[in-house]
Amino acid sequence: MSDHRIERDSMGELEVPREALYGAQTQRAVDNFPVSGQPMPTAFIHAIARIKLAAARVNAALGLLDDERADAIVAAAEAVVRGEHDDQFPVDVFQTGSGTSSNMNVNEVLSHLASRDGLTVGPNDHVNMGQSSNDVIPTAIHVAAALEVTGRLRPALEYLRQTIDRRAVELDGVVKTGRTHLMDAMPLRMSQELGGWSSQVGQAIERLDSALVRLFRLAQGGTAVGTGINAHPEFAERMARDLSEQTGVSFSPNDSFFASLASQDAAVELSGQLRGLACVVMKIANDLRWMNSGPLAGLGEIELEALQPGSSIMPGKVNPVIPESAAQAAAQVIGLDTAVTVAGQSGNFQLNVMLPLVANNLLTSITLMTNTSRLLADRAIATFKVRHDNLEGPLARNPILVTALNAVIGYDAAAAIAKHAYQAGRPIIEVAEEQTELSRAELERLLDPASLTRGGVPE
Amino acid sequence: MSDHRIERDSMGELEVPREALYGAQTQRAVDNFPVSGQPMPTAFIHAIARIKLAAARVNAALGLLDDERADAIVAAAEAVVRGEHDDQFPVDVFQTGSGTSSNMNVNEVLSHLASRDGLTVGPNDHVNMGQSSNDVIPTAIHVAAALEVTGRLRPALEYLRQTIDRRAVELDGVVKTGRTHLMDAMPLRMSQELGGWSSQVGQAIERLDSALVRLFRLAQGGTAVGTGINAHPEFAERMARDLSEQTGVSFSPNDSFFASLASQDAAVELSGQLRGLACVVMKIANDLRWMNSGPLAGLGEIELEALQPGSSIMPGKVNPVIPESAAQAAAQVIGLDTAVTVAGQSGNFQLNVMLPLVANNLLTSITLMTNTSRLLADRAIATFKVRHDNLEGPLARNPILVTALNAVIGYDAAAAIAKHAYQAGRPIIEVAEEQTELSRAELERLLDPASLTRGGVPE
Amino acid sequence: MSDHRIERDSMGELEVPREALYGAQTQRAVDNFPVSGQPMPTAFIHAIARIKLAAARVNAALGLLDDERADAIVAAAEAVVRGEHDDQFPVDVFQTGSGTSSNMNVNEVLSHLASRDGLTVGPNDHVNMGQSSNDVIPTAIHVAAALEVTGRLRPALEYLRQTIDRRAVELDGVVKTGRTHLMDAMPLRMSQELGGWSSQVGQAIERLDSALVRLFRLAQGGTAVGTGINAHPEFAERMARDLSEQTGVSFSPNDSFFASLASQDAAVELSGQLRGLACVVMKIANDLRWMNSGPLAGLGEIELEALQPGSSIMPGKVNPVIPESAAQAAAQVIGLDTAVTVAGQSGNFQLNVMLPLVANNLLTSITLMTNTSRLLADRAIATFKVRHDNLEGPLARNPILVTALNAVIGYDAAAAIAKHAYQAGRPIIEVAEEQTELSRAELERLLDPASLTRGGVPE
Amino acid sequence: MSDHRIERDSMGELEVPREALYGAQTQRAVDNFPVSGQPMPTAFIHAIARIKLAAARVNAALGLLDDERADAIVAAAEAVVRGEHDDQFPVDVFQTGSGTSSNMNVNEVLSHLASRDGLTVGPNDHVNMGQSSNDVIPTAIHVAAALEVTGRLRPALEYLRQTIDRRAVELDGVVKTGRTHLMDAMPLRMSQELGGWSSQVGQAIERLDSALVRLFRLAQGGTAVGTGINAHPEFAERMARDLSEQTGVSFSPNDSFFASLASQDAAVELSGQLRGLACVVMKIANDLRWMNSGPLAGLGEIELEALQPGSSIMPGKVNPVIPESAAQAAAQVIGLDTAVTVAGQSGNFQLNVMLPLVANNLLTSITLMTNTSRLLADRAIATFKVRHDNLEGPLARNPILVTALNAVIGYDAAAAIAKHAYQAGRPIIEVAEEQTELSRAELERLLDPASLTRGGVPE
Repeated sequence: MSDHRIERDSMGELEVPREALYGAQTQRAVDNFPVSGQPMPTAFIHAIARIKLAAARVNAALGLLDDERADAIVAAAEAVVRGEHDDQFPVDVFQTGSGTSSNMNVNEVLSHLASRDGLTVGPNDHVNMGQSSNDVIPTAIHVAAALEVTGRLRPALEYLRQTIDRRAVELDGVVKTGRTHLMDAMPLRMSQELGGWSSQVGQAIERLDSALVRLFRLAQGGTAVGTGINAHPEFAERMARDLSEQTGVSFSPNDSFFASLASQDAAVELSGQLRGLACVVMKIANDLRWMNSGPLAGLGEIELEALQPGSSIMPGKVNPVIPESAAQAAAQVIGLDTAVTVAGQSGNFQLNVMLPLVANNLLTSITLMTNTSRLLADRAIATFKVRHDNLEGPLARNPILVTALNAVIGYDAAAAIAKHAYQAGRPIIEVAEEQTELSRAELERLLDPASLTRGGVPE
Repeated sequence: MSDHRIERDSMGELEVPREALYGAQTQRAVDNFPVSGQPMPTAFIHAIARIKLAAARVNAALGLLDDERADAIVAAAEAVVRGEHDDQFPVDVFQTGSGTSSNMNVNEVLSHLASRDGLTVGPNDHVNMGQSSNDVIPTAIHVAAALEVTGRLRPALEYLRQTIDRRAVELDGVVKTGRTHLMDAMPLRMSQELGGWSSQVGQAIERLDSALVRLFRLAQGGTAVGTGINAHPEFAERMARDLSEQTGVSFSPNDSFFASLASQDAAVELSGQLRGLACVVMKIANDLRWMNSGPLAGLGEIELEALQPGSSIMPGKVNPVIPESAAQAAAQVIGLDTAVTVAGQSGNFQLNVMLPLVANNLLTSITLMTNTSRLLADRAIATFKVRHDNLEGPLARNPILVTALNAVIGYDAAAAIAKHAYQAGRPIIEVAEEQTELSRAELERLLDPASLTRGGVPE
Repeated sequence: MSDHRIERDSMGELEVPREALYGAQTQRAVDNFPVSGQPMPTAFIHAIARIKLAAARVNAALGLLDDERADAIVAAAEAVVRGEHDDQFPVDVFQTGSGTSSNMNVNEVLSHLASRDGLTVGPNDHVNMGQSSNDVIPTAIHVAAALEVTGRLRPALEYLRQTIDRRAVELDGVVKTGRTHLMDAMPLRMSQELGGWSSQVGQAIERLDSALVRLFRLAQGGTAVGTGINAHPEFAERMARDLSEQTGVSFSPNDSFFASLASQDAAVELSGQLRGLACVVMKIANDLRWMNSGPLAGLGEIELEALQPGSSIMPGKVNPVIPESAAQAAAQVIGLDTAVTVAGQSGNFQLNVMLPLVANNLLTSITLMTNTSRLLADRAIATFKVRHDNLEGPLARNPILVTALNAVIGYDAAAAIAKHAYQAGRPIIEVAEEQTELSRAELERLLDPASLTRGGVPE
Repeated sequence: MSDHRIERDSMGELEVPREALYGAQTQRAVDNFPVSGQPMPTAFIHAIARIKLAAARVNAALGLLDDERADAIVAAAEAVVRGEHDDQFPVDVFQTGSGTSSNMNVNEVLSHLASRDGLTVGPNDHVNMGQSSNDVIPTAIHVAAALEVTGRLRPALEYLRQTIDRRAVELDGVVKTGRTHLMDAMPLRMSQELGGWSSQVGQAIERLDSALVRLFRLAQGGTAVGTGINAHPEFAERMARDLSEQTGVSFSPNDSFFASLASQDAAVELSGQLRGLACVVMKIANDLRWMNSGPLAGLGEIELEALQPGSSIMPGKVNPVIPESAAQAAAQVIGLDTAVTVAGQSGNFQLNVMLPLVANNLLTSITLMTNTSRLLADRAIATFKVRHDNLEGPLARNPILVTALNAVIGYDAAAAIAKHAYQAGRPIIEVAEEQTELSRAELERLLDPASLTRGGVPE
């Protein structure tokens, strides 16, 4: 018995694997695109299945599709959304630019699952009813990305932020030398430093949220070129409503389907915000790496948890592997964003034809940032120890503390003190005592590092 | 008589040009950074001057600065804001990463302008009172970019959008062959195509607005490392209020000065939105170029206004020069954004030290997009003519019109008709008449291109 | 019986899957880096195995390793190079920045395979002898990329070039309207147009070759920081020789191991050349897409082979799916290159710690360009048909042919003829006959499109 | 008397400034492109003038142009090349994508300078004879970039390299703790570290040289679409020879003019190599910044020359301003390269129409890297002081020195020693003495940091 069966589409017959749930067009795509070996992300496939599910219900409600077929499509789509058939979507990322092959892949699998003796459910006429790849795929990009951001990335970022905040509370009493230009600057508390990270993460969440506003606007209903040909006039509105109900996310039709099909502007925006988040992750990862540097010939401010031997040649070496993983993930997100930009600027007329690339890169970046955020939280930020001795040493001798005297003695006199103290290797307070009218007690008050972290004009 | 005079700063003496309004630190920076030959954008210098103006008023109101000096600084700063001394800010873009040299340049010029017999206004102690370059420069980036976006770019984009909308109204009756994958697809009206552009521009404006929300949050008040050392506790709030009154834009202090100094996240976000706008401009420019292509061997849908001879060798050639200029401007904005991203991911500890680069690139991109938007509106979109004959020819013979029969005869039967018609070079309607039960009259109704642009399920 | 066994490393014990060939450190890495779900490319793993193979032979020859262990390591490494254990390398791309986890993964697998009753082969002391991850991983990047370029990408590009050249010979007689600025310009032969592509591909090969020169220089021998500590003085030279013999590629030690470890400059260069190749692929793909556009409302110069139904809604539509796949692959290569650049500019002191990212992105880009080149050759360039009628129509009426008269009547007179002819919709030859002294016969000779493709000054 | 005069071109009459040397087409371009306010770089204008100079001589030698006109054009072009008329080239960078406006600008200025009573030298018929913007502008990009690289950038890089090498010789005796993953690793000499930088710069020079090979191949002779229409068959060869003689650089015609016009592949390659150089500059700049960090709470390995006060608020602060300037220049080059890539992938058919952008960005990047290299050499590398005390402290106590014992006692035993020593804060030698059979004297020999920088297997 053969391993294959014969399927047909509008171009003719061909063989597909006997057990495959998909049909001829999927097989053609598998044959046509042996490029990366990487199939589309499952979050994307599930989003298409959600669209099919909604469409079956909407078309039935509008009297365009019989209930029997609708129910069969709904049941099939639910199984796909649950991840039961993830191995049935083999089409490569680098396929037709419209993603038609992925749309047809889902159409065929659902057709196969929904059909039975006495009930033929066609991939085009029934599963794809009222739809075109040209509105399904842009819609799937929005739906998949929106669900991944709201359901996975945002919680991971909240978790990261809470972890930072928790450590900040705990480390509020730790005063350290601030650094600007990498040079010793005025002191701050470690809680303030971590507070900066936390605020960066918080505003990154805000940015994602603001991009979601436009991601919630769907192409569905535009069909082939944006006019909505072959879709019922109420289709777009009802589809958005059904998808919202399915997911708990507030989707609505975009104000221009022509823009939705011809551009990937909302995806470019989200990609840009992910790239901005990558900059935040890179900053935190690098701060952690430098704070952890040493143990002897580095800054040695903290000690990250030891997770694995650091070197195949240098015994006892422990490296900041989680921040390094995070930094690489951030670099990759920046790169994937460049590709999305190239895609975003390349549309012509009624359709952008780099949709599978856009889908893949957005979803990959969301995954990278989600997993990285949790790792940074759990395996670096939650567990590092402070090396108090190393912080305290340079704090008191820091000549830059003289800044606190600006308002009392003026910038130029303060600069002269700082320079003298540093060159002579003497404590700033001694030199200031000699060169100003201020008493030792006044100077001790004015130059106390912990007080200086509270800001204000020292008097 | 010498062309120079002697100035001094905390490092010692040096010569500056006799007539220069600036002092020693500016001169050191001029000598230290002979890199690009390009000074900082004036919008950035003016924003710093606005900060100095506000600071003088706020410090005076807080009783930290005497009114005489404050008034003198205010008058001097107003002159700078009016553009009266734009040639006094020669420091190169590629300078110290904090922009301290530009901050001191403004401090020195204002000090020079504000001082007079009997009144010494010091660049550090008075003009820079309660400030640090580390909060002034990030604030100036936000203020300058916010003013340039709201005052110049946004109006230009509104103008572009209105120009598109006006043409769309005028061209509503023009039906053309839609194109997906560059291939003939279902028809649409030119008004719909232009409506897509308009929606893209409209959503680009929305995106800029959403980035402005975070751009309105200022670093001012954080001073040296974010703690606000040497600034009065009310300084940040009052500065934001004064800057808002000066400009009509609603600034407020950021929730974390540590984040404001250490990162350039809001700038990275705005840069990303400008890059998204560049994708929109690229799409419109390329659509115009292709619609205008020909006149004989191209699409020939429109004729752009002839602005200049197109070729030094081919007489009579006229090229789409405005869209080409626009496409290059878009490419440059994408590149400048990459540099901002590299800058944004490179901060360490309490300060990002790629601030002058960020300022320069943001302001350059805003200028490019502002001028490009107006040119596209006035010299391309407002003035192109439609070549009706070229549109009508392929419209009626387009085999893809068969799509309208899907709901009646099914996708597979429709595909067979399309294939036959195209191969035989015959009108779709003839073949459909032969291969279906539908009457000529029904087919004429179902396949009318103009009707098909209105969407819905043909029955 | 448990599914796991206990393994230990210098940090202690932990469980690994019972059947796994790897040990504790690999397992730690699997646990530490649940980031992308994507393991390192096999070409990279095989390159590490080649290094281990060479090291065992070299250390044995130098008398540092006994022959029994060396032979066992060699046999084990050969099996890995043959691909027999590809499922034993599960470490994520986003791991420690040095790639130590992948190095140890190979060390552990080879240790496991090579050890037997009475023979202990240690992962660090024997398999990794004379090596450090810090020289192994940069070496593996160079070796893997060099083999993939020479063995896969270069042949694919040669094949693409030959395919283009073959079509060019066949289509030498086809004259078409040239296009500059997308506007009708002087005519050329299709062979000339394809010759341009061929030359672009040829020079892209040259560029890869010139990058290979520096890719052939290896880090091996630098060990931990570049000094070569723990490696025999002859180790570097002998390793390069063994790797050259294994592969047929001429490797040699880099002139500075410090540069080899601290930077990824050769990888950045190769990535840049791949990105340049991506620009070539994008150009060819877009030319093909536009030449194929239509069939009625496009340029319609060629017809690409129909590979799959083009639309889920528009029956009979056929799209240029291979060029679209190629264009997306090109966009992705551009993006992956940006990430490599971010990695390349991020090294500090003695080591760049974005090595796994660099390895992954280089090898992914090579795969994308290899497969894309073969697809473009076989499924687009080899099989397109020319639509002669569409080419000939505009050719003779092209007013730009008047360029040929420049040398005879001057640019301004020629421009006047072109303008008149185009506005009146009359053939250029008629207008030229009226407005010049030239006879019909002379004009026919001067304005013959086919002759004009041969260049020279028409007289 | 009016400030303007009337000029005309094939489109009609218009006013130009009375004293302008340019004519109607330049003025149209000035009016058409008020985009960036930035004219084309003078190196680009000079290169066009060199082409005109060569063309006049070549056309005269071929008997196509009379000697009187040729001599007049040559004299005019020489004046432009000498920089005498740099203010006569006002056309914006963001102009027609072919650069025709800049070509005509030069044609018009030379026509104006060359014409006199009794001698009319036409901008198109004489100055532009045998040329098209489509071959002139790509040629000018190659010529200008080649001259700027060979004449300015390369010498600056050689100078940088020599400066590094000189310091390396001087600092050969300085031993420091190596750092991998920012963590203490095996020691190396400062000369070795600087040797790594030197090798990076040296290989960056090699990369530029290898790109020059393809930059030396010129488009000149391809004229309008690559066929060479209107140019004498010997024109290309003779032009390359004349340009070589003028410049001392070995130019030759490209093997395919079709590729030369349709692509910017050689420019993309050079841009990629400049971006690679930017990565090198970034690495060196960051190493310098970190080595200089402190003075107390940083690594404090070196002290960079103090060039200017570092802070407007923190007296006495001195920052690493030259490395910061360099890092920003590097970031900008990376961004300008992205724009060149977008340009490079956007060509269609016979012409890439982002040429002015490409020219501008290449030449800007060359300038940035030239000036940055000299600044880094003179103001950072030549003048930094080593802080010996800070280097020596951590060197001897570094537990990673235990690596030297691997070959003697095995990795696992060595790891145990390192861990114990670090946790107990005891010198490695003490712990090793306790835990191994090795004598104090043997251990002192094996663990001597200076010896360890010489590599090899300690025995």
